[in-house]
Amino acid sequence: MAISFQVFGIKTKILVPGDDIAAIIEKETKQAGGLFDGDIIAIAESALATAEGSIIKLSDVCPSEEALEYEKAYKIDARLAEVVINESDNIAGGIPGFLLSLKKGTLLPNAGVDESNAPEGYVVTLPKDPDKSAENIYRKIYELTGKKTGILIIDSRTHAMRLGCSGVAIGCFGITAVSDERGKKDLFGHQLEVTRLAIGDNLASAAELVMGESDECTPVAIIRGMSKHLSENSFGVESIEPSECLFMGTAMNANPAFFNRD
Amino acid sequence: MAISFQVFGIKTKILVPGDDIAAIIEKETKQAGGLFDGDIIAIAESALATAEGSIIKLSDVCPSEEALEYEKAYKIDARLAEVVINESDNIAGGIPGFLLSLKKGTLLPNAGVDESNAPEGYVVTLPKDPDKSAENIYRKIYELTGKKTGILIIDSRTHAMRLGCSGVAIGCFGITAVSDERGKKDLFGHQLEVTRLAIGDNLASAAELVMGESDECTPVAIIRGMSKHLSENSFGVESIEPSECLFMGTAMNANPAFFNRD
Repeated sequence: MAISFQVFGIKTKILVPGDDIAAIIEKETKQAGGLFDGDIIAIAESALATAEGSIIKLSDVCPSEEALEYEKAYKIDARLAEVVINESDNIAGGIPGFLLSLKKGTLLPNAGVDESNAPEGYVVTLPKDPDKSAENIYRKIYELTGKKTGILIIDSRTHAMRLGCSGVAIGCFGITAVSDERGKKDLFGHQLEVTRLAIGDNLASAAELVMGESDECTPVAIIRGMSKHLSENSFGVESIEPSECLFMGTAMNANPAFFNRD
Repeated sequence: MAISFQVFGIKTKILVPGDDIAAIIEKETKQAGGLFDGDIIAIAESALATAEGSIIKLSDVCPSEEALEYEKAYKIDARLAEVVINESDNIAGGIPGFLLSLKKGTLLPNAGVDESNAPEGYVVTLPKDPDKSAENIYRKIYELTGKKTGILIIDSRTHAMRLGCSGVAIGCFGITAVSDERGKKDLFGHQLEVTRLAIGDNLASAAELVMGESDECTPVAIIRGMSKHLSENSFGVESIEPSECLFMGTAMNANPAFFNRD
């Protein structure tokens, strides 16, 4: 057999605003033999955002005209629509129940605003700066344990023409999120055509398999055996321009107004 | 700690048309302790397609007018474009180097036709019927080992607005590719909003981490510890309608002609 790795889920208490995620990870993993150098720690973005206090009480939200229009068009609570508008750089349209947001060059349903796993009457937004949060957690884990790890902030997202959600990396530190394979050769010595591997998304998907989305309270996963993807020169998770994206580039060629609907 | 699983890469010789993948898997895993009941076996689609003889010699291909137009518009070899046209139900457009194909309800670059990891002067198409191939391999593995496994045929694909390719399931047998979470409760007892988990895509992504895309010759991965996703009622990998897809639904609302360009 060739290379192998292991993935463990880490159960925690239900997180609340103000919780120190790094300290919780250190405590919960210590009982199971502790962290190792080279471990990759994947953290669910909703747990991180909650601990960081990125939650909004819906009854405090006053919906705008635009939000009320989206409620009519897409059957989405106008207060939720208002939060989504505030969290988005642009709204590209929607389907019933969801607005399609553009946020920092990434396309995502409802700007990542989540009603699941939030206290009654609240919604959780995406973490403000997932790369920065990953760096802070990395440093705190290193301080507490002396171990060099990789930190990945992950989300569960729908993909074009795929049924069901799978894992994506939305922030990282100490880890190569996208591996550049350009210049490498294939089995027959040709240059490779697939030039980039989304290592961070693959790791996030592996982590999601032990996390689940329901009442399992497993917001953290440890991936052991993939230390080859650790890097001292980690630049966080890069996004791509819509024009470079096969799906959106094609949609834009067909209709240049697609991304400028306001 | 909560649940955990392991992923092993399985190295093989370079596969050629006529190879028996199930027999090769049985042989290579036997040397490493053998397969277990509940193991999930992920197989790279390019290796499967090659073994099944789904390879085409480019010098035998005579490009049509349409293919010559795509060569001009998208800088793609007209013979490759011709193979892509034949493998597609429809071409939705493209970006330099790639045509965007619709095939059996799925949207994918160059209809999955791959020049990498094919013998010189050949291309590999997608396996003809990945669900059926998965079933055949399942039955042969069971015959050879007596073990009940899950079989996953996987590909590495680009996703909307993500940098880099990650793993997706394109065929399966004995395994639940998409888990329906509707009716389950979240941490606070609410109904879940994310209703479906792409277990097959998550498993494919985990497998891809031990396979790589270059000259590593590791076309198979064993995932051990995820037997909860095995199922006697496996219906293969379901696709979704473009109108149900957040990305394509929005693009179609903006421009209904997007999927009917011929």
